[in-house]
Amino acid sequence: MPKKELTIVKIGGNIIDNADKLQLFLEKFNAIKGAKILAHGGGKLATDISAKLGIEAKMINGRRITDIQTLEIVSMVYNGINKSIVAKLNSLGAKSIGICGADLNLIPASKRGKGEVDYGFVGDIVPDKIPVNDWNLFLEAGVCLVVAPITADAFGQLLNTNADTIASAVAQALSKLYSVKLIYCFEKNGVLLNPTDENSVVPIIKAQEYAELHKRKIISDGMIPKLDNAWEALKQGVDKVIIGNALHIEKLTEPMHQTGTLLILG
Amino acid sequence: MPKKELTIVKIGGNIIDNADKLQLFLEKFNAIKGAKILAHGGGKLATDISAKLGIEAKMINGRRITDIQTLEIVSMVYNGINKSIVAKLNSLGAKSIGICGADLNLIPASKRGKGEVDYGFVGDIVPDKIPVNDWNLFLEAGVCLVVAPITADAFGQLLNTNADTIASAVAQALSKLYSVKLIYCFEKNGVLLNPTDENSVVPIIKAQEYAELHKRKIISDGMIPKLDNAWEALKQGVDKVIIGNALHIEKLTEPMHQTGTLLILG
Repeated sequence: MPKKELTIVKIGGNIIDNADKLQLFLEKFNAIKGAKILAHGGGKLATDISAKLGIEAKMINGRRITDIQTLEIVSMVYNGINKSIVAKLNSLGAKSIGICGADLNLIPASKRGKGEVDYGFVGDIVPDKIPVNDWNLFLEAGVCLVVAPITADAFGQLLNTNADTIASAVAQALSKLYSVKLIYCFEKNGVLLNPTDENSVVPIIKAQEYAELHKRKIISDGMIPKLDNAWEALKQGVDKVIIGNALHIEKLTEPMHQTGTLLILG
Repeated sequence: MPKKELTIVKIGGNIIDNADKLQLFLEKFNAIKGAKILAHGGGKLATDISAKLGIEAKMINGRRITDIQTLEIVSMVYNGINKSIVAKLNSLGAKSIGICGADLNLIPASKRGKGEVDYGFVGDIVPDKIPVNDWNLFLEAGVCLVVAPITADAFGQLLNTNADTIASAVAQALSKLYSVKLIYCFEKNGVLLNPTDENSVVPIIKAQEYAELHKRKIISDGMIPKLDNAWEALKQGVDKVIIGNALHIEKLTEPMHQTGTLLILG
């Protein structure tokens, strides 16, 4: 019997920061058929609120350095955003629940060890430890899980965790049970050859072309962890990974999608 | 067949604001046998963060007036607190999930109409509309629900909602399926005859004595909504309502508890 389909969508801060775009996205997301999961980032709001509270945001290689004060703020902001997404989705007729990795230990994590950079209270995930049967109880009941980018370790410490990585790890784990489509959504139409031209979408990127695109700076900054997560997902059994525009989500989920960048191994 | 037992505990801000006390409380809460639900308030943290963000807290009769900015802050703070409680509980071996009323529409609410006071984005709950079977799916699976004091209306608007009221409404609804013990925990040993003497606990208050205690100001301020919620809970089938010290929770849950104030009708 072929596996059932599961769509995992990750949306970034730019959509979340704009109420009208978020509403439009959620309407389209809600129309996607079958099992689905929505992972979200936090974006500017966390930075804005931290700044107002006098906590300076520190970023290295597109990742936030999380001291304990920052952790408390981002946990509040992300889990707050999470519930506003859930409320909007449910008002559209969805049956959604907002979780972070701490809930039911759905995403077991550990605090990242100090390497060259001490990222602070940041969580690393081992996809194999994700309890797929617990996730599946919700999916089988027709529940859409909305996932905030916070996890917890075995000692009950909350940890800030990259939303792209969460989407990838959950996709990898659930590919044991489902044929998983992982869609990274952002404000652009895909990976662009020319960053100022939305019509210059690279339709397909093979893993072996990645180094070249990186060198030519077509892939840089925030796109790097997205792509690293994408290759890992594909290696670990995820069926399909696409990067594209959140407001074209209905096209990105089509089998023969005519927009976005499809990532393939080989 | 007698109904199974369900313990619903509500903790207030004073416990949440103190990490050591919270940890001790959670260890004791985790040891309570059988189905259980933990509802929590937010307390000082919401007020502190609002103040730092330049939003002044407005209170009337012990209830917060919630404009849209305040709503956004309290939703973040309460849902952030929620997840830190969940992470701590799970590290103790619990199987807990953090929710607010918006999740799966577990607590359908409506925005309070403007009466003499416009409370703003505040939710009112109709206990009869609470989907008890959805709650029961979690309870039957041995999951402890941790509930943040935020609900949503049918239009996807989040609403600030009194945690005492949530605990009472959920207790009322679930008394259809369970023999429910509702425990309001705070920093005092119960309702005190003399507010400065922790040994002056009133062991039992009958509904008919309430007016007299109110007049003598033994019951005032924050205690008023707690007691109003308590009587309503008892009228609607909740088995037992007790008010006591969060750090004596293991005694309050005993059948013959020797601390706290027991509330009874009649």
